[in-house]
Amino acid sequence: LEVCTRCGGRAVYTRRYSGEALCAPCFKESIVSKTNKTISRYNMIARGERVGVAVSGGKDSLSLLLVLDELSRSHDWHLTAFSIDEGVEGYRDEAIANARAITERLGLEHATVSYKELYGFSLDQALDWKEDRSVSSCSFCGVFRRRAIDEAASKAGVSVVATAHNLDDYVQTFLMNLLHGDVERLAWLDPAYSDESFPVRRVKPFMELYEEETALYAYLSGLPFQSVSCPYMHEGLRSEVRDYVNQLEAGHPGMKHVLLKSSLGVVSRFASTKLSVPCTRCGKPSSSGVCNVCRLKEAVNQQINYGDGPPRAGGG
Amino acid sequence: LEVCTRCGGRAVYTRRYSGEALCAPCFKESIVSKTNKTISRYNMIARGERVGVAVSGGKDSLSLLLVLDELSRSHDWHLTAFSIDEGVEGYRDEAIANARAITERLGLEHATVSYKELYGFSLDQALDWKEDRSVSSCSFCGVFRRRAIDEAASKAGVSVVATAHNLDDYVQTFLMNLLHGDVERLAWLDPAYSDESFPVRRVKPFMELYEEETALYAYLSGLPFQSVSCPYMHEGLRSEVRDYVNQLEAGHPGMKHVLLKSSLGVVSRFASTKLSVPCTRCGKPSSSGVCNVCRLKEAVNQQINYGDGPPRAGGG
Repeated sequence: LEVCTRCGGRAVYTRRYSGEALCAPCFKESIVSKTNKTISRYNMIARGERVGVAVSGGKDSLSLLLVLDELSRSHDWHLTAFSIDEGVEGYRDEAIANARAITERLGLEHATVSYKELYGFSLDQALDWKEDRSVSSCSFCGVFRRRAIDEAASKAGVSVVATAHNLDDYVQTFLMNLLHGDVERLAWLDPAYSDESFPVRRVKPFMELYEEETALYAYLSGLPFQSVSCPYMHEGLRSEVRDYVNQLEAGHPGMKHVLLKSSLGVVSRFASTKLSVPCTRCGKPSSSGVCNVCRLKEAVNQQINYGDGPPRAGGG
Repeated sequence: LEVCTRCGGRAVYTRRYSGEALCAPCFKESIVSKTNKTISRYNMIARGERVGVAVSGGKDSLSLLLVLDELSRSHDWHLTAFSIDEGVEGYRDEAIANARAITERLGLEHATVSYKELYGFSLDQALDWKEDRSVSSCSFCGVFRRRAIDEAASKAGVSVVATAHNLDDYVQTFLMNLLHGDVERLAWLDPAYSDESFPVRRVKPFMELYEEETALYAYLSGLPFQSVSCPYMHEGLRSEVRDYVNQLEAGHPGMKHVLLKSSLGVVSRFASTKLSVPCTRCGKPSSSGVCNVCRLKEAVNQQINYGDGPPRAGGG
């Protein structure tokens, strides 16, 4: 059996790209210190800052909450958590309950913002009515979720929002943007990206951690694993990309880190691209005249009103 | 059996991404007109210009020669062909003989420039002596081949050199750069890339054509196929990348074109990155003080001199 290269205990994990073998406590400690390094490397959070943690309730975001909570003491951060309730019956409820249990244990504030209160419809309702198949359920939901996070951050009065995106997520998203021909959006992936029209920064303290490492951290920390996955999840291309990247990493340990480095080098060249036109309806940033939130909201509302209206005449 | 969507003849090829079915003459004609469009879209070659065609003797470069020859009449281009003889016994000789046969048939000049005459050693000799395993044989050879093409272009007095890189090559190279963490080199992939220190432009008229289409064009044109492949070829990562990209294209027809579009969008942001420091030994452009050609040449010569020297003393 392998021995922890740090303390001589029984190793539970081997980092293939570095050769390091780690026991459970040293592994968990390494996750905290790696996250700390990522945060300082990209100047993600300042000393004494008010930080909003976006907590879906899944293993990654709960891990982020634990790690940031541990780091917050020495950095004098003021953490507050919030969850977005998209309104997916039998799925999000469980996750939010998990999030609430952990935040209570840590003694942190926890707010929930729902699509229903923000937009007038739940995701269940919107997808039920959605007829436009040009946008996948995940992209559709993502447009509303990003805005909901902004709203929750404003309410909580934080200057920075931390999300639990890990190295795998980052690299996949980078490649997905290329596969969609969406290079302008690469700007969003810049760790230093900021939009003057919305002063709350977004940071990804786990962006240098493998998905398998955040999962192991969650497991070793006894965090609850969600039993159901989102019923609308349709990954398509992303799961192909995940497979390719995992195969590359398996054959060339450390490849995900190389890809991250390249991605950062590329996105830094797009940092000046901004969504700078204010939406003519809501005033939030948009790439053209009307932002995606207003555009999709209107499409959903048209369907709802149509569905609620009088039944069509005719029909024998 | 499928029918040619252009002339009603018997189709030999179907373009999955467009749905077009084409007979042999219409397919060949489409390759010529697509190449013509690529050349004008990126302003690759000006009317009346002297064009050097880099001909390895493989199917792609021989196809390029045929297509450019056909287009040269209406554009008043002056074509001249050249081959680089790396000095690989039993491999390059056959290819150069093929190149010579085709250029003779077309009535074009054809020059050959060898590593031996330019650098003092053949690739066979250099790789025999090479001990530095940090550079793959293909990267090693590539450094010398690029310089040899520059030399051949200067000799031939052309202002632009056309190489036969196709869409697959382009996209693979783009991704390979990312997987090597080599983002600065992306500048070289810009179709408008130019280096003031070397006034001969490089263009890739086939960069919007699938590899399978250039191969079919070669086959339908009766071009000779090389029977042996380079004995030093070791593709490693590139063949993995080729497989992934081919799988993506199979599942999502047109994906290679999307990737090309994204790649072009990305490389355009790197276009200002130049290899701008003159090499302290040969004066050619380099990224730092000494160019790769001089650096690797010296390493090879040290090995050669060491091997030619007196035998080591001792050894019982």
